[in-house]
Amino acid sequence: MDERLAELRRRLGEVSDLRSALSLLDWDQMVMMPPAGAAVRAHRVATLERVSHERFVDPRIGELLDELRDLEGSLPYDSDDACLIRVTSRDWEKASRVPADLAAEQARAASEGMEAWVVARETNDYAAFRPWLDRHLDLKRQYIACFDAVNDPYDVLLDDYEPGMKTSEVEAVFDRLREELVPLIRETGGAIADSLGKGPFSEDAQEALGVTVMTAFGYDPASFRLDSTVHPFCSSFGTSDIRVTTRYRDDDLESLFSCMHEIGHGLYERGVSPALERTPLASGCSSALHESQSRLWENVVGRSLPFCRWLHPYLVAAFPNTLGNLTLERLHRAINKVEPSYIRVDADEVTYGMHIILRFELERELIAGTLSTADLPEAWNARFEEYLGIPVPDDRRGVLQDVHWSGGSFGYFPTYQLGNVMSVQIWEAARASLPDIEDRFEEGDFSELGDWLRENLYALGRKYTPRETLERVAGAPLDPEPYLRYLREKYATPVGA
Amino acid sequence: MDERLAELRRRLGEVSDLRSALSLLDWDQMVMMPPAGAAVRAHRVATLERVSHERFVDPRIGELLDELRDLEGSLPYDSDDACLIRVTSRDWEKASRVPADLAAEQARAASEGMEAWVVARETNDYAAFRPWLDRHLDLKRQYIACFDAVNDPYDVLLDDYEPGMKTSEVEAVFDRLREELVPLIRETGGAIADSLGKGPFSEDAQEALGVTVMTAFGYDPASFRLDSTVHPFCSSFGTSDIRVTTRYRDDDLESLFSCMHEIGHGLYERGVSPALERTPLASGCSSALHESQSRLWENVVGRSLPFCRWLHPYLVAAFPNTLGNLTLERLHRAINKVEPSYIRVDADEVTYGMHIILRFELERELIAGTLSTADLPEAWNARFEEYLGIPVPDDRRGVLQDVHWSGGSFGYFPTYQLGNVMSVQIWEAARASLPDIEDRFEEGDFSELGDWLRENLYALGRKYTPRETLERVAGAPLDPEPYLRYLREKYATPVGA
Repeated sequence: MDERLAELRRRLGEVSDLRSALSLLDWDQMVMMPPAGAAVRAHRVATLERVSHERFVDPRIGELLDELRDLEGSLPYDSDDACLIRVTSRDWEKASRVPADLAAEQARAASEGMEAWVVARETNDYAAFRPWLDRHLDLKRQYIACFDAVNDPYDVLLDDYEPGMKTSEVEAVFDRLREELVPLIRETGGAIADSLGKGPFSEDAQEALGVTVMTAFGYDPASFRLDSTVHPFCSSFGTSDIRVTTRYRDDDLESLFSCMHEIGHGLYERGVSPALERTPLASGCSSALHESQSRLWENVVGRSLPFCRWLHPYLVAAFPNTLGNLTLERLHRAINKVEPSYIRVDADEVTYGMHIILRFELERELIAGTLSTADLPEAWNARFEEYLGIPVPDDRRGVLQDVHWSGGSFGYFPTYQLGNVMSVQIWEAARASLPDIEDRFEEGDFSELGDWLRENLYALGRKYTPRETLERVAGAPLDPEPYLRYLREKYATPVGA
Repeated sequence: MDERLAELRRRLGEVSDLRSALSLLDWDQMVMMPPAGAAVRAHRVATLERVSHERFVDPRIGELLDELRDLEGSLPYDSDDACLIRVTSRDWEKASRVPADLAAEQARAASEGMEAWVVARETNDYAAFRPWLDRHLDLKRQYIACFDAVNDPYDVLLDDYEPGMKTSEVEAVFDRLREELVPLIRETGGAIADSLGKGPFSEDAQEALGVTVMTAFGYDPASFRLDSTVHPFCSSFGTSDIRVTTRYRDDDLESLFSCMHEIGHGLYERGVSPALERTPLASGCSSALHESQSRLWENVVGRSLPFCRWLHPYLVAAFPNTLGNLTLERLHRAINKVEPSYIRVDADEVTYGMHIILRFELERELIAGTLSTADLPEAWNARFEEYLGIPVPDDRRGVLQDVHWSGGSFGYFPTYQLGNVMSVQIWEAARASLPDIEDRFEEGDFSELGDWLRENLYALGRKYTPRETLERVAGAPLDPEPYLRYLREKYATPVGA
């Protein structure tokens, strides 16, 4: 191997190790850490963030990348080495603009802010959380100022999650969605819909069922683990060490869908080519592409009739007392119920988009400074009622419900809805290649779909831009029409009617 | 604050954060990680070891320490700042001699070796583990070569766990112990002894009982957590974030004693003065002093008659079917049974020392090169039978039983027995200050002892040398006589007879 390339790989391997340790600090804080550990943990996180940042923006890496430009040009565009040099150059150029102190301060604020949020959410105390939000917004403005003047300051934040995507593109897609979603919600939201009842559903049975379904999708205990947390999430510490979490409630089965959602993220990380391990390419390509996979497995597969045919006997066996008389048709209707509700992560496929459009609008105003954090709950509540048609009862079920802002993640929310849009584009491409794929679902065999996704998407990691990656896997650029068609076909006539 | 001191503290804080992240990687590997994560984890660990080592031996820290020598001289010997400069200078001088590559290689070998050991132990396959042992021994020789010629190469390894202690001192104490232990084993080992039976003891009830006892000793869920692992241990990621582990077997109650043992370590870490947080002084003083606390709580307290008076009703209530008829006297006899056995961590107070003396002797010979790893199992088995009087049935219950060598920890084992010796010295000092302390035990009140230990030992952290610390808390240097007197008084007449 070229010596400079070997040195680059060695240095990037160290950065990968430091970042992975940082991810473990975060995972541990959310999943395992006793609460009194939070104060010192914030220092640990800030230092790891600082050191990994410093090591990555080391001028020597910039030199190596410059020197390797010729080599990149001589290699096939698709080769791992060419992609490594190309993508890392973009990352390095961007990261070099951010002072290590600011990176460390953001990490510290994230760690401390998340602890404050947990308490504020529990006690429904927005006022206690507001100073953290102000601190994050101040840090975000400092962060935006590190980059050249852009059309929209929000572009800088969006680019961290969806490299290359512009705010104006999101706006165009969201405008189109709003146009269709608002009448669709009106049309379907009133439909009479079944539910799975109020349980009780024992945690043990929920966990066993979650593992059964995840295992059918590709989970195995040698490379994954499942825990429970306040806010479900997925972390990866290597392509063979994936952690997913869910949460259990005794009166519903949302844990099952959260398992399918998080394992979608997990399968993406697990499927990244092992040849990319310990490089900046060893993860999912973007937040929206990541979300496309959680949504594909959770919604497109997990709320389909063929999937229900397979799941039904397992569900009845798991909860004989509460679901012993559940019919297949009622199951399918219940898990596709459309009803405006307060909590984003519990929202159905039709109303979900408006939860995101709300957050996107508020984030843009907060960043632009046209909305203050003092007025945020009021703005949230007014717009929520306007879009979803129901009044927000309290901040717990309103502005305090999500973890993201507590960790300073602004620019992230829109990728959730872009993920929904992409999930259907990718699903249509998979089905075009594997026409009888849904017949396999009825038998509990999801391996054809899993293999296709691994080969056409997961294995690529971050080798290409999100735009390139989407075109490779779906054969087309970002397009809301397949998603809207999917929703209309599924919901314009109430499911199971 | 002196600016140089502030810079030193900032730099040491970063090193503390990196080392804490390294400890978390280790803890996670032992407690949480899915097995396929091991390969990449070894890289993570090696990098964190390398980076924390590099940051600590940074010449700038050496300069600052030199420049601060005057300040140190002007401060009271006991002041936190004087201790920080004094102890860090010793640490820095020692660490500076070790190349970062060697430190990283040792960390990688430890991580990989531990994975290999788990498999080798399960499959009783010493041959598969032997290459790891050779690799560790080779690395240890390279490590020893970093230091000036010393009387005994083993001194270098011992100093990592018991700073300032010489191999010859250990030998003198162990010679004295052997002289007394061998006849004592002969005298007591044949005594008829009760047991608590073979259960079954449900894991849930064991865990609840373990938590009850640990809580009485000072455990609280805000600052601690308890998990289960193959080899019980304690880790600290800050003075308010302590992790202990135990293991459950359905046919005995060793988990209870392992909880008391590990919480002893945990209380020491928890009691370190918060003013020392994020400095090199923020941990227990040495391995032997640490072990003195695990043994004090596990054995001196946890196998005493006053403790049994408190525990007895809890134990009977936890296991009504198997221990419903247990008398206090039989409980006390059963948990003080003396019987030669294979597994060190299950050994009673009388035979334990010979397990350690065996390992100390073999380690010295392996390091000196007078024993090869090829001959190690045979040497182990022959000497084990000579000292304990029973033949070793297989390597699982022989040379493969302990995790330490798999992680390259040579020089550690003797500190276990030194800890036993110190535990009785410290206990006698506590009882001299608090004459009616044992009456409190009967009521389940261990706070007087906990407070005394925190004030006189735990809070000091690493401010003083182990020798200074022992003299402060026990009022005397290392002395095997109180320990031997304790054993003779307790065991020369069989317990409860």
